[in-house]
Amino acid sequence: MNLQPLLAYINQYITLTPEEEATLLAKVRYRKYLKGQFVVQSGDVCKYENFVLSGCLKTFYIDPEGQEHIVMFAVENWWTADLGSFITQNPADFNVQCLENTELAQFAHEDLEQLYQEIPKLERFFRIIIQKAFVASQKRVVNSFSLPAKERYLAFKKQYPQIDQRVPQYMIASYLGITKEFLSKIRNQLILEQ
Amino acid sequence: MNLQPLLAYINQYITLTPEEEATLLAKVRYRKYLKGQFVVQSGDVCKYENFVLSGCLKTFYIDPEGQEHIVMFAVENWWTADLGSFITQNPADFNVQCLENTELAQFAHEDLEQLYQEIPKLERFFRIIIQKAFVASQKRVVNSFSLPAKERYLAFKKQYPQIDQRVPQYMIASYLGITKEFLSKIRNQLILEQ
Repeated sequence: MNLQPLLAYINQYITLTPEEEATLLAKVRYRKYLKGQFVVQSGDVCKYENFVLSGCLKTFYIDPEGQEHIVMFAVENWWTADLGSFITQNPADFNVQCLENTELAQFAHEDLEQLYQEIPKLERFFRIIIQKAFVASQKRVVNSFSLPAKERYLAFKKQYPQIDQRVPQYMIASYLGITKEFLSKIRNQLILEQ
Repeated sequence: MNLQPLLAYINQYITLTPEEEATLLAKVRYRKYLKGQFVVQSGDVCKYENFVLSGCLKTFYIDPEGQEHIVMFAVENWWTADLGSFITQNPADFNVQCLENTELAQFAHEDLEQLYQEIPKLERFFRIIIQKAFVASQKRVVNSFSLPAKERYLAFKKQYPQIDQRVPQYMIASYLGITKEFLSKIRNQLILEQ
């Protein structure tokens, strides 16, 4: 197991000493999941905040009619969890499922709380990370009001480069809130424009 | 001007020494706005993160068809800004407008960055506040998928107690994503059920 990408990621925002890196790594849990496995299931408490070392996951919500709504994808160097459930330790609304074999670095709730005490500058790191997540989620709401589907698809491709090849088209359509047929039309149109 | 509510709010999450309180207050800008004035206008950079001392504001987005979408309200002890614009110092997507005469405690971007250096435990405070905002915004997305309009209205009343009396009904309808007529029907139904 190679946790170097996690340290490299954190050190983009704050500077950890070798001792702090050791303290942090002692609390990180490394886990492999198979394609199809669930990291979070709605109704269960989300136990971990997860950093993606390799693989691909989707976060989705099933509405009362049984319809799946994809809220986000996560690939290498992304964080994923049902953050509301993780923070409050109440049952999750969302599911997080692996779309490929996936390796995660996981922080348990109580371990992260302890790490905040031992390495206070992690507060800064997570403050910045969560700010970015909040802004991305607001931006998505604005885009859903204001951008036509084609522009939303282009914004998606920019946000998740190369994920087009890794994720079935019907999931991308679900994320964009359009039908698979309409996404296919948009893709064909973009090919013709090239 | 009485900034005590701001200190009381912050001290719920972290404990500031009297010196730290003085450092913080030296960087806070107190400002009164009249009903109808804008704190943030879309297209301008959002300069301040704002704590509401008194009054009431709405955050909204105008889509390309000119339709207004209310994203949140803020009353006493809430924070309001276009956070994406504030963090990146790029032009705002949202407008923040006063629905009543309003008093704010404002943190300018560069002052807040400096405060993080001078009082590192503010990182913890804002980490927790932004987490809560993120979770509330996710919850709203889930509710919009899953709850019927009546339940969404009840959730709104729980989240913003007494705002019913302070805000025109058509704005509450906009926040809930329903027509004014439909909201009126729901309210009448609830009165009959009492």
